Amino acid sequence: MTNEPLKVGLIGGGGQAFIVHPHQRAIHMDGTRRVVCGALFPDPEQAMRQAREWPYPLRGYGSYEELIRAEAALPVGERVDYVLIVTPNHLHFDPALKCIQAGLPVFCEKPLTMDLEQADTLVAAVKKSGVPFAVAHTYLGHWTTHLARHIVRSGLLGEVRWADSSYLQGWLAARTEDENPQARWRVDPKCAGASCCGGDIGTHALMQLRFITGLEPTAVSAHMDAIVPGRQLDDHFVANLRLSNGARAMVRASQIAIGHLNDMAIEINGSKGSLMWRQEDPEQLRVMLPGRPDRVYWRGAVQPDEFLGELPQWLIDEGQRLPSGHTEGFHDAMARLHRFFERDIRAWRDGGKPSTDTPPYATVEDGRAGIAFIAASVQSHRNDNQWVSCA
Amino acid sequence: MTNEPLKVGLIGGGGQAFIVHPHQRAIHMDGTRRVVCGALFPDPEQAMRQAREWPYPLRGYGSYEELIRAEAALPVGERVDYVLIVTPNHLHFDPALKCIQAGLPVFCEKPLTMDLEQADTLVAAVKKSGVPFAVAHTYLGHWTTHLARHIVRSGLLGEVRWADSSYLQGWLAARTEDENPQARWRVDPKCAGASCCGGDIGTHALMQLRFITGLEPTAVSAHMDAIVPGRQLDDHFVANLRLSNGARAMVRASQIAIGHLNDMAIEINGSKGSLMWRQEDPEQLRVMLPGRPDRVYWRGAVQPDEFLGELPQWLIDEGQRLPSGHTEGFHDAMARLHRFFERDIRAWRDGGKPSTDTPPYATVEDGRAGIAFIAASVQSHRNDNQWVSCA
Amino acid sequence: MTNEPLKVGLIGGGGQAFIVHPHQRAIHMDGTRRVVCGALFPDPEQAMRQAREWPYPLRGYGSYEELIRAEAALPVGERVDYVLIVTPNHLHFDPALKCIQAGLPVFCEKPLTMDLEQADTLVAAVKKSGVPFAVAHTYLGHWTTHLARHIVRSGLLGEVRWADSSYLQGWLAARTEDENPQARWRVDPKCAGASCCGGDIGTHALMQLRFITGLEPTAVSAHMDAIVPGRQLDDHFVANLRLSNGARAMVRASQIAIGHLNDMAIEINGSKGSLMWRQEDPEQLRVMLPGRPDRVYWRGAVQPDEFLGELPQWLIDEGQRLPSGHTEGFHDAMARLHRFFERDIRAWRDGGKPSTDTPPYATVEDGRAGIAFIAASVQSHRNDNQWVSCA
Amino acid sequence: MTNEPLKVGLIGGGGQAFIVHPHQRAIHMDGTRRVVCGALFPDPEQAMRQAREWPYPLRGYGSYEELIRAEAALPVGERVDYVLIVTPNHLHFDPALKCIQAGLPVFCEKPLTMDLEQADTLVAAVKKSGVPFAVAHTYLGHWTTHLARHIVRSGLLGEVRWADSSYLQGWLAARTEDENPQARWRVDPKCAGASCCGGDIGTHALMQLRFITGLEPTAVSAHMDAIVPGRQLDDHFVANLRLSNGARAMVRASQIAIGHLNDMAIEINGSKGSLMWRQEDPEQLRVMLPGRPDRVYWRGAVQPDEFLGELPQWLIDEGQRLPSGHTEGFHDAMARLHRFFERDIRAWRDGGKPSTDTPPYATVEDGRAGIAFIAASVQSHRNDNQWVSCA
Repeated sequence: MTNEPLKVGLIGGGGQAFIVHPHQRAIHMDGTRRVVCGALFPDPEQAMRQAREWPYPLRGYGSYEELIRAEAALPVGERVDYVLIVTPNHLHFDPALKCIQAGLPVFCEKPLTMDLEQADTLVAAVKKSGVPFAVAHTYLGHWTTHLARHIVRSGLLGEVRWADSSYLQGWLAARTEDENPQARWRVDPKCAGASCCGGDIGTHALMQLRFITGLEPTAVSAHMDAIVPGRQLDDHFVANLRLSNGARAMVRASQIAIGHLNDMAIEINGSKGSLMWRQEDPEQLRVMLPGRPDRVYWRGAVQPDEFLGELPQWLIDEGQRLPSGHTEGFHDAMARLHRFFERDIRAWRDGGKPSTDTPPYATVEDGRAGIAFIAASVQSHRNDNQWVSCA
Repeated sequence: MTNEPLKVGLIGGGGQAFIVHPHQRAIHMDGTRRVVCGALFPDPEQAMRQAREWPYPLRGYGSYEELIRAEAALPVGERVDYVLIVTPNHLHFDPALKCIQAGLPVFCEKPLTMDLEQADTLVAAVKKSGVPFAVAHTYLGHWTTHLARHIVRSGLLGEVRWADSSYLQGWLAARTEDENPQARWRVDPKCAGASCCGGDIGTHALMQLRFITGLEPTAVSAHMDAIVPGRQLDDHFVANLRLSNGARAMVRASQIAIGHLNDMAIEINGSKGSLMWRQEDPEQLRVMLPGRPDRVYWRGAVQPDEFLGELPQWLIDEGQRLPSGHTEGFHDAMARLHRFFERDIRAWRDGGKPSTDTPPYATVEDGRAGIAFIAASVQSHRNDNQWVSCA
Repeated sequence: MTNEPLKVGLIGGGGQAFIVHPHQRAIHMDGTRRVVCGALFPDPEQAMRQAREWPYPLRGYGSYEELIRAEAALPVGERVDYVLIVTPNHLHFDPALKCIQAGLPVFCEKPLTMDLEQADTLVAAVKKSGVPFAVAHTYLGHWTTHLARHIVRSGLLGEVRWADSSYLQGWLAARTEDENPQARWRVDPKCAGASCCGGDIGTHALMQLRFITGLEPTAVSAHMDAIVPGRQLDDHFVANLRLSNGARAMVRASQIAIGHLNDMAIEINGSKGSLMWRQEDPEQLRVMLPGRPDRVYWRGAVQPDEFLGELPQWLIDEGQRLPSGHTEGFHDAMARLHRFFERDIRAWRDGGKPSTDTPPYATVEDGRAGIAFIAASVQSHRNDNQWVSCA
Repeated sequence: MTNEPLKVGLIGGGGQAFIVHPHQRAIHMDGTRRVVCGALFPDPEQAMRQAREWPYPLRGYGSYEELIRAEAALPVGERVDYVLIVTPNHLHFDPALKCIQAGLPVFCEKPLTMDLEQADTLVAAVKKSGVPFAVAHTYLGHWTTHLARHIVRSGLLGEVRWADSSYLQGWLAARTEDENPQARWRVDPKCAGASCCGGDIGTHALMQLRFITGLEPTAVSAHMDAIVPGRQLDDHFVANLRLSNGARAMVRASQIAIGHLNDMAIEINGSKGSLMWRQEDPEQLRVMLPGRPDRVYWRGAVQPDEFLGELPQWLIDEGQRLPSGHTEGFHDAMARLHRFFERDIRAWRDGGKPSTDTPPYATVEDGRAGIAFIAASVQSHRNDNQWVSCA
């Protein structure tokens, strides 16, 4: 039985939902995980119909409460091994909490919650229960993100002096929300919370920075502009940061930068060297050392060298799952999240300890850090961009 | 039942096999196809053990003959819906023929066969039986390949005047075959046939050219060099072509070009414009028109414009499955092959007609065209690069 | 005589000076301007010797005062037509003022002066005398800068909403000043003024933004860090701006970003489209429109199209001086500055009016705007990054 | 006097000539060379008028014979130090020969002559007279070309196994010759000789290959197509080569590849590594080693490293004339040719020996090699692409 695919349940994902589709591809990609049930839609009747009409028939539930109650009542091996929450932002907290309390592991879309209080509640619940919990910061799943992390954390770039992490889009440059439901809830404070651009994509940029450097923002001075007329929430976001090692940094995001698709990028400048990474070109990592040629490392073709020294074997192996030059993309990154989460769930189910290798998925604490960052940014913005502590 | 996942059987894929892994990810990716059985290895005992130890337990068979016999005896709905053949080159023909004769659809790795006679036999068998048959020219599965095809075939570039299709690798620049089994069979005439570089990757470049332009090579003058000492087969391949519209073209491939990973590229020069595409950067297509700015089209962000005019709705829809700027990679391209093959198998199973949209998978005739091209190239090379007809 | 090359005099440029060399190449490049004399060094004896040992013998002067006095005393046609000031920052003001007062046109390196008071004095002196005066913001001289300006000012991108102008270097990431005289004066408040990074290269980024958009910064919130231990002046600079049309913008600069050479870039996001330009890749300009392919315009290959509409003939002609695909570089950009300055000097000398085409050189008012920007930035930085008006 | 600028005379360059303009910029760029006279046009009256109306007044001559006679009669120091020949192809030979015979150094545009017999005559004349002679293969003047040469010739890439040198343009994709005089003489056998595309730009690709590798083509199998209807000469050129070390190579050129401006590129694959260079991006050189990150070397930022080992000091110095990140372009490359030619002329004039550093200009023997290559290519093309020896 240990070899049987993990069973996954969906909360949300019906109707015109988008992110559920990449998730289900990522879940299925290895053959060792399988979506088996779902509470796909708020309206019970539609929820049941959509479950039947899913690419293949799912065990349908009329509500997430029902799903959680019924599944938790099943014996291990029959019940879902984890629940994927892909509802709009304001519907993350309640099902997540109920899953944790019912002992069901959760893979939750970001941002974790609508406010810091909710986030604190989830952190406490996870701590208490020990249930595996992941937040979908997908870009952590790129292999090159892990190489970048290895390089920075090994001290190869020296002390981090400056980081510039950005995520630029252009799809909200016009009033897309008048037609597109994906846009509509994002610009609506009731569904999205206190920030649109910062919360939706600025947090990705923050998470990339935290994950790669291991540094935390300690204070923020933020500029959150609603550029397109009629918007209540920011569609353009710039935050100046102080980091836990004393360095400065910047987190930038925009949804009005026409021509940018999902242009997420990070650059780290250390005392001994720099690195650059771009999400839209995810198979390479550029490292720059003083007086040396730029070094372009390709996933799958990276071997220990005079700069890198030895590399952890798991990192080499992970990079060689697909030969270099055959692009790993978004689905592969997302599958890596689910794959590592699967590994940790199997270990937890068997009473063992999770691997010590850093997983590519964000934890509930990471999710909370994103919420705290946005809360501090909003406070800074409302007070003439003054510096606000990120507790 | 029509909604149930298609069942897939594997022939080959055990031991240190590589290509089976991307295939199984691509098969599973949508949740609507599932590997259920396999004859994974020549040795029956190992074959059975590897089936049990597959990421999840498969129905194991000791030989492909056994798999074909047993599965074909099951009723539709229980038996495999198609068989994936991922054995070395010299073991494609026999299982493929036996599957066709048993009425089992086949998804076969390339090259189709070891020689033209075998290829002709398969073409005839498929024609007679009507069984769906696909050849795994994965790069046809990129969305941008389809956009390129649409552009060229719509006449937007005018008459095709010149095409340069290339596939460069560097992994055989040293005597990799002394250690790497993936290299060993490729340089061995008994396993690989009459060509290493030309057959292994030159055929990909050819297929890309044929698919995008709709033109056939009519004659070839080929240069096939075994550059690394001790090799019997070519590790470097250059073919000058005449095309069916009278234009000239070039198909180039190398396995000794250090620094190239899987650097497949094609450029088409027409009387009204040009296009360029690279496999390692598969999300964009560059179009150049006289006196105009270069146009870079991104998958998912392409809309009808003053150059493209209207686009087929299926092409737009297909491009928007994943938002632009979130890279689709190799697995996505491969999944598109399996997805379209699934569609055609479901239609065939239901007695309906396959869609008229060109599938992204190569047919058995396409597979034969690759074999014919290599046969002509070998003949040209052995005769001082003289022009040889590609019948 | 009108056809005779203009005569140029040098103030500064001896010893280990660097910027004089590109200038003299740019001056000489067209054959219509020629360096004839110089006060090359503070020490009179060395100044005279270096003049003799210049690539070809110059008329030497022991001091700039002497040069100005002697040249101004010569009749037009024998005396220098303009003076190039290439001294360190703190030695711009005095010779510039004396030249103006003596009726000699000035081409001055940036930054214009050490403080706003000096800058105001020069502005007033130029206004009073009518003498042609240029400041060497070389990057304005790239043809693609002018195309960018044409596009933005024609309203083709709609209203400017956001601009990000940056200039990143890495050469001061270590204590270069311990050995390199070029670094030494830049980090020394006595020679460089109140800012190193902001003044030296941040002003280039500002000038690019002002020139292309025609907008002025109205307020600034600046972060000026001295990252390398022991420095008094900033080696890293981030300024958030408010622009005169109400939009926001950012001017960024760094000298500790290892791996960046002279990585100057600007992006403009308008309500109808965006543009991107990079100094290190100066022959192309990328324009992005919603739902359209990225457009890459190449110098020399730009023709009116459905986006650009008609282009000014002078812009087309200027772009075609060297066929596209043959890179114009730094010297070409600098030569364009000197060429337009030559044109205006000839017009002034003949009593005519300068051309109405915008010259690629910065005026004395532009130079003053740079000084005002740095002054406001310093004040902001010293007051917890509060917003300071740029008058 | 040794410090005085060299005096340059022009043969050709009047009317609508193009290449004379980059040359005069390159000649003047350093201040140490100056155009002083010219026989600019076939018609004597126009020639004299155009000399007066040159950007500044030149000493005009009515014919090149007159120029050569008159200048050679002047004493050294008054007469031209070298003559630049920028006439159409069929007018290179006669003035070049007459200059040599008159003892005047020659800088001649390529191709050297119309046929091999003429080329042999010039080679013999130069050998006999000892007069400095350069052929304008401008792309040899890029610093990165010299770094590439250093790398290949030092054996750092191991034995050269394959080279692919190409030059792609699109400007003759339509019948440009109906309007454009630059196109008209190039497609006319009487002015251009036996080849248009191969001779005009294929020879640049060949020269780049010879210069960087030090290898000679020993045999060629060429394909020369006249693709645009009505043309007598090739506008598309592909040559397969055997090289003097036994390796194979390819020289490709096209004038019908719409969207390519002056897209010259070379890749060398050696047994230990590869390098790639592109003329349109001339400031970087990419080196690829097995299992190592791609290395991107930037002009001006290259220091000895674990791969390069020590570098010749002159190469380092030459690379640092302009700080890295400030692009050197076409004019800089051309100026490097004239600068090294100046150095050799000064040495010759003083009776000294030319420097042993390889100059970036092609010699008369190099020019002859280009003519021989085209002659062999034409012969191959006319004989079904058979292999023809390049003597």
